[in-house]
Amino acid sequence: MSVNSFGRLFRFTTWGESHGPALGAVVDGCPPGLAISEADLQPFLDARRPGQSKFTTQRQEPDAVKILSGVFEGKTTGTPISLMIENVDQRSKDYSEVALAYRPGHADYAYDAKYGFRDYRGGGRSSARETAARVAAGGVARLVIPEVTILAYVTEIGGDAIDRANFDPAEIANNPFFCPDAEAAKRWEKLVDDARLAGSSLGAVVECVAEGVPAGWGAPLYGKLDADLASGMMSINAVKGIEIGDGFAAARLTGEQNADPMRPGNGGPRFLANHAGGIAGGISTGQPVVLRVAFKPTSSILTPVETITREGEASEIRTKGRHDPCVGIRGAPVVEAMMALVLADHKLLHRGQVGA
Amino acid sequence: MSVNSFGRLFRFTTWGESHGPALGAVVDGCPPGLAISEADLQPFLDARRPGQSKFTTQRQEPDAVKILSGVFEGKTTGTPISLMIENVDQRSKDYSEVALAYRPGHADYAYDAKYGFRDYRGGGRSSARETAARVAAGGVARLVIPEVTILAYVTEIGGDAIDRANFDPAEIANNPFFCPDAEAAKRWEKLVDDARLAGSSLGAVVECVAEGVPAGWGAPLYGKLDADLASGMMSINAVKGIEIGDGFAAARLTGEQNADPMRPGNGGPRFLANHAGGIAGGISTGQPVVLRVAFKPTSSILTPVETITREGEASEIRTKGRHDPCVGIRGAPVVEAMMALVLADHKLLHRGQVGA
Amino acid sequence: MSVNSFGRLFRFTTWGESHGPALGAVVDGCPPGLAISEADLQPFLDARRPGQSKFTTQRQEPDAVKILSGVFEGKTTGTPISLMIENVDQRSKDYSEVALAYRPGHADYAYDAKYGFRDYRGGGRSSARETAARVAAGGVARLVIPEVTILAYVTEIGGDAIDRANFDPAEIANNPFFCPDAEAAKRWEKLVDDARLAGSSLGAVVECVAEGVPAGWGAPLYGKLDADLASGMMSINAVKGIEIGDGFAAARLTGEQNADPMRPGNGGPRFLANHAGGIAGGISTGQPVVLRVAFKPTSSILTPVETITREGEASEIRTKGRHDPCVGIRGAPVVEAMMALVLADHKLLHRGQVGA
Amino acid sequence: MSVNSFGRLFRFTTWGESHGPALGAVVDGCPPGLAISEADLQPFLDARRPGQSKFTTQRQEPDAVKILSGVFEGKTTGTPISLMIENVDQRSKDYSEVALAYRPGHADYAYDAKYGFRDYRGGGRSSARETAARVAAGGVARLVIPEVTILAYVTEIGGDAIDRANFDPAEIANNPFFCPDAEAAKRWEKLVDDARLAGSSLGAVVECVAEGVPAGWGAPLYGKLDADLASGMMSINAVKGIEIGDGFAAARLTGEQNADPMRPGNGGPRFLANHAGGIAGGISTGQPVVLRVAFKPTSSILTPVETITREGEASEIRTKGRHDPCVGIRGAPVVEAMMALVLADHKLLHRGQVGA
Repeated sequence: MSVNSFGRLFRFTTWGESHGPALGAVVDGCPPGLAISEADLQPFLDARRPGQSKFTTQRQEPDAVKILSGVFEGKTTGTPISLMIENVDQRSKDYSEVALAYRPGHADYAYDAKYGFRDYRGGGRSSARETAARVAAGGVARLVIPEVTILAYVTEIGGDAIDRANFDPAEIANNPFFCPDAEAAKRWEKLVDDARLAGSSLGAVVECVAEGVPAGWGAPLYGKLDADLASGMMSINAVKGIEIGDGFAAARLTGEQNADPMRPGNGGPRFLANHAGGIAGGISTGQPVVLRVAFKPTSSILTPVETITREGEASEIRTKGRHDPCVGIRGAPVVEAMMALVLADHKLLHRGQVGA
Repeated sequence: MSVNSFGRLFRFTTWGESHGPALGAVVDGCPPGLAISEADLQPFLDARRPGQSKFTTQRQEPDAVKILSGVFEGKTTGTPISLMIENVDQRSKDYSEVALAYRPGHADYAYDAKYGFRDYRGGGRSSARETAARVAAGGVARLVIPEVTILAYVTEIGGDAIDRANFDPAEIANNPFFCPDAEAAKRWEKLVDDARLAGSSLGAVVECVAEGVPAGWGAPLYGKLDADLASGMMSINAVKGIEIGDGFAAARLTGEQNADPMRPGNGGPRFLANHAGGIAGGISTGQPVVLRVAFKPTSSILTPVETITREGEASEIRTKGRHDPCVGIRGAPVVEAMMALVLADHKLLHRGQVGA
Repeated sequence: MSVNSFGRLFRFTTWGESHGPALGAVVDGCPPGLAISEADLQPFLDARRPGQSKFTTQRQEPDAVKILSGVFEGKTTGTPISLMIENVDQRSKDYSEVALAYRPGHADYAYDAKYGFRDYRGGGRSSARETAARVAAGGVARLVIPEVTILAYVTEIGGDAIDRANFDPAEIANNPFFCPDAEAAKRWEKLVDDARLAGSSLGAVVECVAEGVPAGWGAPLYGKLDADLASGMMSINAVKGIEIGDGFAAARLTGEQNADPMRPGNGGPRFLANHAGGIAGGISTGQPVVLRVAFKPTSSILTPVETITREGEASEIRTKGRHDPCVGIRGAPVVEAMMALVLADHKLLHRGQVGA
Repeated sequence: MSVNSFGRLFRFTTWGESHGPALGAVVDGCPPGLAISEADLQPFLDARRPGQSKFTTQRQEPDAVKILSGVFEGKTTGTPISLMIENVDQRSKDYSEVALAYRPGHADYAYDAKYGFRDYRGGGRSSARETAARVAAGGVARLVIPEVTILAYVTEIGGDAIDRANFDPAEIANNPFFCPDAEAAKRWEKLVDDARLAGSSLGAVVECVAEGVPAGWGAPLYGKLDADLASGMMSINAVKGIEIGDGFAAARLTGEQNADPMRPGNGGPRFLANHAGGIAGGISTGQPVVLRVAFKPTSSILTPVETITREGEASEIRTKGRHDPCVGIRGAPVVEAMMALVLADHKLLHRGQVGA
């Protein structure tokens, strides 16, 4: 089965390598009649774009998205929307060493074990550049769910967490870390810069909240809204964990503490808490959908690590190239996109599953 | 799309409600020629079976699995294997109250919001009884991956974690908690019993390790081995979080700390650490696959909780019925089954994706 | 991928062998709130049921369908509907010869080539008994599309076609051949009986018309309504051809002859012809959907045919057992069911693809 | 579900409109390590390319295919292969009339009924230009099945059939009709030219034979090899019928006539006939896979036809633009491509379904 696709009714397929001529996505199942232009998608790509501060990779990519099909006279037609982003700043020569030895923490060895062959330039298909394609697709998904507002932000870098008391959504765009806590953002400047200068890297936690999701999206079992979110988030490069609502902390609560009591509200219950993160039994409850995603530290580091060559000999590797000292930072717009992609799909599924 | 199915080449579909006549699974895509009998599947159902100690629900279900198709002369034929488990100890009258008001933390309200209608007896399709069907299917999956050994156990109940120094796999079968630490198991007896007597409930964390998975299973992006594991685990009732390898803890490590250095080994690298949990870039590395799953406390509690009725009036509910004081305990065999189901699918996919 | 399933949003999976304990279907994706009982499904099974005249197999099967899940208080809940039909009149001993040699025209050799192993009793999974399960599933599908009326009938047996001038839908239930032409039905009595007595068998053509399908169901390319109908019909045992509208005859028309001119009508065009069979560009036009299906003669014949044994030695085989002298006759209710199953799926897909 | 995709393990998605900037296909699931270049694909596009004789549309399209991903150092990597073909000779102004009224026989009305909106330029997504993308994808599929030889040819135009006695595969490339009978090809010159000059169009029948398919590809029921072929062929523009082996003619044979007797052969049976067209019970038998596809006459004709406008007023339409007088002719390379695409998928599926 097509493993480079995601979604059921709103389905996208991505293609492209880090150092190929281009990468892209085909979005299939977008409803007809939605106003759309390249300018609607570009801001999301710009948010994810590298090279905008010293805290991300210095590769300079304009990431200009082109719409090649599925749109006529400024509106979606219901047919596949082909999106293409050209690669312009490849420097494949940086990767001569990677061709010979496996970078620990990377997909290098696993790819070779699977395919017996790999495009080693910049990680090829395993590069986080793939996420540009899904951010473009996510821009289309947002048009399908205008009732929903999605916000992702970084809550923790290298173990240093934000203070919830300082939470201010307006701050997120004010710093290069998608950080809602101005004080934490200040601390992170030094933290990330130190890691960068030390040839090291840091992990991060991204939180994402979707408001406006009506009750009833999702499905009881294997097509659960949270199962699809878990799958989608875990498919982002460098992600190692996903929590819905209280997540692992819920395992430490009692049943009474974890209950989200209900009182009569307008057109549905008014919940007194949201431990569940807006999803019960795989179906949205009408509360905000809340999740958290753990990004491991970037595997590409200048610090030498023990490894083996393709021939199985002992070696050591330092990954030169140009890399994010904390790949989780740019993960925030990707998590947002993935949230939009899953929700758009479930909106269409819900429409197909029930009703007149 | 069929939302009660899971898997691609090794695919299963479950059906059935808590208080219907039976429940079951259809396993499609099992390779032919595997020796199988009901006796091969029953031990896994027995491990998950309720009513075996005071720490689980007192509902008495033999959970005897019947094979209705796909097997001839003791071997799988390659055609669908239909598995059925009859329900024998339903007490639907316990649920008269549930018909009228929504249990907070449960799928009751979400189902009504989606379907406008629900089978309220024992939670209907949202009941953890569904997991009996997937445990049966998991028994078939294990036959497909004889090279793999899977072990799941509870590492934490109500915030009380095991001591890794005491870890002894032989202990797991010695206590009613699937606990590998004999001392923790002793503490949990009181902990869980207190919760039960107080009409409360507790959450838990289950860890699962699969040894023997060769390098190369999985796929780079949306069909990542870890994405499928995340989806499968999150689709288990009461699960709110999933981690691969170090998971959220990896977000607190530096790149050097998180690297899994490689040295020359026999027929592949010898890894010096396994922060990655055996998966890199969505593909297995040949190391043990390690994951952790967070179960929230059982939502059905005797302690009254504020709620609303179907008509939207304020109310209060105590869930009588018979319930697990800690649904995560019986989660261990379910997590094992889900691991087997995902791995069996990826073994077949790998065979289809590459090779001569 | 699950190859024993069909459909996208309205999806069913069948299981079971000719001589196993039972067979069945799991219908997933049926919308909630539809009134349903076993009595709603049974008439369709009765129409297909064998042993009702000398023109079909003498195997006596009540084909009583049981609903095991997905229904509560007489209404569908939106969760999977498990349907089971027990086999009662197996006579496996008839098949000792089939175990040793391959029946030409049958799936015997192909199964062995694929699986290296097969359930030879009555053809196992390749038996037309499987169609009982899909007829049951088709009964559920009909509830999803109450606006559509489906009628299938036999237009040709052994090359003897009906006279369209005699076409009378009321006749279809008056003879054992689902024949809309009373005179042809009379001729076919002798034709089929002669074939039966001679130990031979005959082919047939079944036509099916669905009225009431609104314009707009389907999709432009690989999910075309006609592509799904072609797939569904070709998946019925013994089917070798499928035509939409004029089908192969359209290849002999000019563009002017084949055009279906339009005039203003009520709420859409009034078409002056229906060469297209109600589908253009993969999407329904609002005209009746018309198709024809070719059934080959039953491969199980008493006349000896040259064959080889499993060991590859020359042999000869006469298929004893109990068989339909013309399997296409009982194909009519199966074609109807398949039409309903495809249309139900496309109704739900359309709802998910477009609209508010 | 993605309706612009086809296949399970070897899966492709096409995108693009007749008058957009480009069209293309993403091929997902191609095994790694296959030698491939654009030059390997171009000959198949050239065979299908328009404007090469007066018997096809005069639109001049070089149809040069570009590979944008999935290939490294001349070999497939196992990641998605993105193929793009730029449109260069659009003349959208020809379609002003089509914007206002529906062309009978075309998808115009059905698209509007479904989407409420359409790209009317050249039929947009419903144009046969889409088949360029699947021919490119088919070129990749051929690399996956080097053991198979596929040949498609036209056996009938406007009701004038070839003489099987004259069948010479070498003739197929000698005339603009893919005709294996030199005499028929001569007759068709006048036939097609007369239709063209009269502003009319003709239908055709294409036959396709795949040799070298081993026994065992396919699956018993809904994933039958013939069901997938039926779906794939019916999804080609203008196709209205599909037959496997003897197809509709088999409905006129007796069981003895239709049997394909077997004698001992080398490594499998030697069949004495091939009425089944190489497929039994949905699984290949090792004989040549044979099918026939009916193409209706091109719907775009200069002869005026009664129609209605989008506003529902009576009108008349002549389709100017540039069109094939017999779209079935260029159907031959498309049918070949589709055969390759289905077989490649089933080869991979078979590998995943059975074996060690």
